[in-house]
Amino acid sequence: MIQINQNYTKLPGNYLFADISRKISLYQQRHPDKPLIRLGIGDVTRPLAPAIISQLHQAVDEQAETATFKGYGPEQGYAFLREKIAKDYQNRCGVKIQADEIFVSDGSKCDTGNFGELFADDTKVAVCDPVYPVYVDSNAMAGRAGTYNQKTGRWSQLNYLPCLEDNDFLPQIPGPAEPVPDLIYLCFPNNPTGAMAGRELLEDWVAYAREHGSLILYDAAYAAFIREDLPLSIFEIEGARSCAVEFCSFSKLAGFTGIRLGYAVIPDELAFQGVQLNALWSRRQTTKFNGACCLAQSAGAAVFSEAGQQQIKDAIRYYQENADLMIQALSEMGFKLSGGVNAPYIWLKTPDNMPSWDFFDLLLNEAGVVGTPGSGFGPCGEGYFRLTAFGTHEHTAQAIDRIKQSFGQ
Amino acid sequence: MIQINQNYTKLPGNYLFADISRKISLYQQRHPDKPLIRLGIGDVTRPLAPAIISQLHQAVDEQAETATFKGYGPEQGYAFLREKIAKDYQNRCGVKIQADEIFVSDGSKCDTGNFGELFADDTKVAVCDPVYPVYVDSNAMAGRAGTYNQKTGRWSQLNYLPCLEDNDFLPQIPGPAEPVPDLIYLCFPNNPTGAMAGRELLEDWVAYAREHGSLILYDAAYAAFIREDLPLSIFEIEGARSCAVEFCSFSKLAGFTGIRLGYAVIPDELAFQGVQLNALWSRRQTTKFNGACCLAQSAGAAVFSEAGQQQIKDAIRYYQENADLMIQALSEMGFKLSGGVNAPYIWLKTPDNMPSWDFFDLLLNEAGVVGTPGSGFGPCGEGYFRLTAFGTHEHTAQAIDRIKQSFGQ
Repeated sequence: MIQINQNYTKLPGNYLFADISRKISLYQQRHPDKPLIRLGIGDVTRPLAPAIISQLHQAVDEQAETATFKGYGPEQGYAFLREKIAKDYQNRCGVKIQADEIFVSDGSKCDTGNFGELFADDTKVAVCDPVYPVYVDSNAMAGRAGTYNQKTGRWSQLNYLPCLEDNDFLPQIPGPAEPVPDLIYLCFPNNPTGAMAGRELLEDWVAYAREHGSLILYDAAYAAFIREDLPLSIFEIEGARSCAVEFCSFSKLAGFTGIRLGYAVIPDELAFQGVQLNALWSRRQTTKFNGACCLAQSAGAAVFSEAGQQQIKDAIRYYQENADLMIQALSEMGFKLSGGVNAPYIWLKTPDNMPSWDFFDLLLNEAGVVGTPGSGFGPCGEGYFRLTAFGTHEHTAQAIDRIKQSFGQ
Repeated sequence: MIQINQNYTKLPGNYLFADISRKISLYQQRHPDKPLIRLGIGDVTRPLAPAIISQLHQAVDEQAETATFKGYGPEQGYAFLREKIAKDYQNRCGVKIQADEIFVSDGSKCDTGNFGELFADDTKVAVCDPVYPVYVDSNAMAGRAGTYNQKTGRWSQLNYLPCLEDNDFLPQIPGPAEPVPDLIYLCFPNNPTGAMAGRELLEDWVAYAREHGSLILYDAAYAAFIREDLPLSIFEIEGARSCAVEFCSFSKLAGFTGIRLGYAVIPDELAFQGVQLNALWSRRQTTKFNGACCLAQSAGAAVFSEAGQQQIKDAIRYYQENADLMIQALSEMGFKLSGGVNAPYIWLKTPDNMPSWDFFDLLLNEAGVVGTPGSGFGPCGEGYFRLTAFGTHEHTAQAIDRIKQSFGQ
């Protein structure tokens, strides 16, 4: 009889968003006249930019004619898009990437979730705590995480990098006596804390990875939100090309959460045991993937047009205005918070060390505002709360008013 | 130091299509004035149907307005599409499927490539020979295939089901003394042979799987090409709901090879070791996938409109006319062939037992026509050649004329 992958049975139920949904339903039954404001899920709300819409209509029309119809595309993505991405790297941050080092996909979640397949079963993995759950769960499914301890909220074989107030929510380099991870997941700007690493910390991580033959998986999905003078890409750091892969996304850059488009950058010189990593990924993608939607790729190219660039920057500024508004108002109310400056996420310390879920209940029931309990992202998230800047101006302002009425002095 | 997944290094180079490309380039240099006709790759050539194009334009416009903008969708796919798929099953073949047993994806290649993750490392796998390479390669990457023997073209631990002339290219049930596979990949209508299993053979496979606790992964990507009174779905067979998953695709049904849309059907009662398989797949998809492109899903819904159904059937008939033309003309020329009746593929026996690659060279150089050498799909494909019906009428007729001039009496 066929046996299921027992690693799946070790996964704890993913109750976070299910619990949130259940509590929301209860609230709505009790308060049918007071609509909720959702600042919980990290999904965008602005429509696609006009330049992208117009390119999409054209791409659709091309599918209606034999002469311009696109069937199977290259698994790695169309060259017209990869060349634009490469040029954009050069323009944005002076980083030279070749178009054939870029692997287009249907999103960073898929890429970061699948990339671990390229490595041995007993690969030792390091993740931040709190952390985007995909890094943890995909490794648990591969049998690398050991067993889950319900009480501590941690896996026995994962190497956790605590991100707390006293280290500015930034993962510190393991000391010389600490175990060396093979695979290090870093996400900057960070989901969920909104923290952004400085150049020096990234230099230290690159040096550490090079020294130990480790690989950094650098998730830069929120890079478009960086406002301060900080690295937009891990490849701004010298030496990163031989120890890092970068994952980028059009989701938060241009509102493609429903369209689905992202890419991985795998430098040519990145190799282990004499095997080029981009050749391995190419083998994986040509076997198990068939290219991103051709319409999505056309839309992606429009992002890099002059009009497209202006329009997506306007949308990002719109969200940044939400973040600014929240930071100012919540600070004035006496909340302690971080993030929001170089990221669309605000990481709120709950008042009086209140447990994350208690604060969730309070905010929901007092203010009718939904956020995400920090403890859902790992034990070091306990006592914190994530708010997103992806709402509309109107809802964001309303949420602040309601919080002021409930918690303000 | 991080170690790569050594199973990847066991994979033989995927030279099939690279070799074909190289030979084509050479030919084109020598014959710049004689354009090639490509009947090799199984990609469609008809543009998308008008009903689909019109729905796509509407879906694009919805992304331009805040009120109708779609962000992250459900990983399992939108209910509006899953409900239409369920109804279509009922209409097409009287099979009752619930919408929540359907998992929408970006295509069958991804689904069949990823599905093996749900099972134990030492799962014993059976594949047809010849076979669609994804089934073999994805299991080799997971370490289940053993080692590859360059000489025999076979993996040491795979269970091969030879599909040859004397069994009508249909995989036979293993005898009582033969090893029992846990996971059985069946593809009907078949790629590459174009063979279609009768009801009785499928009943035998279902009985075998149920008796042994095996799982059938049934790839029905070409079901729209079935013309005879044969099962359109494995779920037409009694008992299949407790031993089979079915993979379906919009690629050949409606020309979505570039748009990317498919789905898996995982019956509720399908469970092993007390774990529901659709719960496992849902866990996999929510962790490593973020839903198919929202535009593709809207387009998929249009396939099931009255106009959409009529239009996609016209396109399929167009390809079937190509198949009919090829079958008649090639038979008249004395070629022995099968397939093409219930499938878009024609499986040609090479004249005088010529090796597949020799015939490839001959056809390329004499007629300027490209097909796929059967040996590229496995050792039992040696001495065969795959032609597809997906060309235009014009090119198909031209190809036949050229073959006639080169080989005809």
